[in-house]
Amino acid sequence: MDISRDEALAMDRDDALAAGRHMFDLPEGVIYLDGNSLGALPRATLPRLQRVVGEEWGRGLIGSWNDAHWASLPERVGDKIGRLVGAAPGELVVADSTSINAYKALGAALGLALAANPARRVILSERHNFPTDLYIAESLARSHGCELVLAEDHAQIAGRLDEGKVAVLMLTHVNYRTGRMHDMAELNRRAHAQGSLVLWDLAHSAGAVPVDLNGDDADFAVGCGYKYLNGGPGAPAFVWAHRRHAAHCVQPLSGWFGHAAPFAFTTAYEPAEGSKRFLCGTPAVLSMAALECGVDTLLAAGGMQALRRKSLALSRLFIELVDAHCGGHGLTLVTPREDALRGSQVCFAHPDGAYPIMQALIAHGVIGDFRAPDILRFGFTPLYTGFADVRDAVQILAGILDSGEWRKPCHALRRVVT
Amino acid sequence: MDISRDEALAMDRDDALAAGRHMFDLPEGVIYLDGNSLGALPRATLPRLQRVVGEEWGRGLIGSWNDAHWASLPERVGDKIGRLVGAAPGELVVADSTSINAYKALGAALGLALAANPARRVILSERHNFPTDLYIAESLARSHGCELVLAEDHAQIAGRLDEGKVAVLMLTHVNYRTGRMHDMAELNRRAHAQGSLVLWDLAHSAGAVPVDLNGDDADFAVGCGYKYLNGGPGAPAFVWAHRRHAAHCVQPLSGWFGHAAPFAFTTAYEPAEGSKRFLCGTPAVLSMAALECGVDTLLAAGGMQALRRKSLALSRLFIELVDAHCGGHGLTLVTPREDALRGSQVCFAHPDGAYPIMQALIAHGVIGDFRAPDILRFGFTPLYTGFADVRDAVQILAGILDSGEWRKPCHALRRVVT
Repeated sequence: MDISRDEALAMDRDDALAAGRHMFDLPEGVIYLDGNSLGALPRATLPRLQRVVGEEWGRGLIGSWNDAHWASLPERVGDKIGRLVGAAPGELVVADSTSINAYKALGAALGLALAANPARRVILSERHNFPTDLYIAESLARSHGCELVLAEDHAQIAGRLDEGKVAVLMLTHVNYRTGRMHDMAELNRRAHAQGSLVLWDLAHSAGAVPVDLNGDDADFAVGCGYKYLNGGPGAPAFVWAHRRHAAHCVQPLSGWFGHAAPFAFTTAYEPAEGSKRFLCGTPAVLSMAALECGVDTLLAAGGMQALRRKSLALSRLFIELVDAHCGGHGLTLVTPREDALRGSQVCFAHPDGAYPIMQALIAHGVIGDFRAPDILRFGFTPLYTGFADVRDAVQILAGILDSGEWRKPCHALRRVVT
Repeated sequence: MDISRDEALAMDRDDALAAGRHMFDLPEGVIYLDGNSLGALPRATLPRLQRVVGEEWGRGLIGSWNDAHWASLPERVGDKIGRLVGAAPGELVVADSTSINAYKALGAALGLALAANPARRVILSERHNFPTDLYIAESLARSHGCELVLAEDHAQIAGRLDEGKVAVLMLTHVNYRTGRMHDMAELNRRAHAQGSLVLWDLAHSAGAVPVDLNGDDADFAVGCGYKYLNGGPGAPAFVWAHRRHAAHCVQPLSGWFGHAAPFAFTTAYEPAEGSKRFLCGTPAVLSMAALECGVDTLLAAGGMQALRRKSLALSRLFIELVDAHCGGHGLTLVTPREDALRGSQVCFAHPDGAYPIMQALIAHGVIGDFRAPDILRFGFTPLYTGFADVRDAVQILAGILDSGEWRKPCHALRRVVT
């Protein structure tokens, strides 16, 4: 497999999504393959923040909670994200961080599951799930007298479910370190057959792959605003509950914005109807406005199916070119080659070089990231990554591996992004 | 008591803090007495956000977590807030919302208190504490098998404490609807004498009145970033634990940023040393940068003692002028006249007019707020409120009351702030 720069450029010219790059403000000379860690800056964001800060806050002051519709941001932006993940209007809200939303959703799910069957006391996840999900599950397992059981790999999950002891299955849909994607519909079906509930972390899915929470009959979901949704560093996250649960589940972080009547200032907590009960404190207006710009940018691209097609074409090309040009240097592909099993990222393990090779790539203007202990991770965001980017990135990677420059102890790891 | 406009302007000329107003971008023609609900916009904030968004995020991309020191924002801004509330460097961190931090701190405090004496199962608070604190306490009382007991007023608290059943006393230092300030040192002493711990909500104290958490021997504290700290709508909040607790307390929201080694991606949670364990998810960088500008603006004013002196002078003048000019219209002062008991706000109850009187004031350019069911609330932020503002506000209030215009059903409630 090989491809010339001209051929890659021709692919970009034929790409209906190539114009998406102009909706982002990316530095020159950089191939950014880390949108799965921090999405790039949409051009719409800074003007919006200038308006929110200078006019809405500066001029409108407290009145902007109503006049500038700050108070409805969690639901308005939530509805927009809902369109990307198969949630109906009113079902998904933006709030807090992914970790905190995981606590709310897992707490709510455990409450329902333990009420239905107090004998099922296992929270099932994977050892290589993203750690913060495991840390949150560890806390709730302790407070609820449950056991956190970790499947060693995806293949063990079904068997563990079938043992019938699982209260809640908590998985990240696309794994952060392998890019492997679970079959959401099948795992939901299998869990429900045992009376278990399922909580999905969509951190590496929302805006990256098509997700259909209602169609696939999920129970709860959370996800991240600063990766493929381009919401900016530490952007607010989101949380969703299926409507069969939302109206009566109890989430532990019962703050005033999740109250049925926050401004009645009543002494006792009464949850808002539906998913709005997953709100807690005062919404982070500046961060939510930035997130809305990121989501709007994605929605303007014309649908997840077209984004998915291009994402798969990019990652497939990347895998094939690394196969062809980077052999014999110790890289092991840990991401599935099969399209249906792959999210929007490609990861390689390297026994001792993952960190220095990634540092060398960054010094050459190819930004991916390193995930301890041994993973090089490359994210493909179809809105602002082109086929020539993929071809150039592999050529640079091959050059680094062939020259062995990453092994030099004093390799000058100057950042090209300043 | 009366004062002419010229006399008030002379007081402003003599005021060393009057220059503080130029550090804020306030609309013309507005007397803003609602900085205790949403602090005004510091002039430094918009340029900082332009830099954070345009340069750090747009150019620096993922590298800015290190290069632009995003990762240390929670501790750096926390240390600055610590200087305002008597916390030592490293003891206070910025994170999440006040509600969520209340959950963390109350969860941690309950864990310690119940371990020390499982027979003490009362969480003591006040019926008129800010509702979100009560809602959070209600959730933790349920999950910990505790009882939430609400004192009917401040006078009952000591007696309840002395019954010896209180695990944790949770109070807001300055009450949101009366402006009454508790004696922190005395209540800490009294609680500790019974083996109870104390959690303080500093929402209406931080940046408003001098607070000395260590000097007064508090156990835990949380507070708000968008009131007197001028952090912007929905700004992140803060959380503090006394060093005798911070190193070994367990807070329930165990997310990855509170882990001892977040980027080691280990499976099991191990809390960071000290108060850093109160971090949970990825820090909200845009919001924290805005908060830092607000805190820096306050720190530049030269110390809480000078701010307190002016704050008391402003609120005292307001009370005296309302006494003199607004009698016979049904207003009842609910804020203590005694300086030592008063925060930085003045509140009046009105049996049926609190809402329409406040709407009329806003239509005339005096912005305070209404708190259900019957409270008119006026906040005095000494950095951007002057003596002439106070004099003019009372004159406008007296005019509204004398004319009875607030009683007209179709009173034109046009907002002057657009």
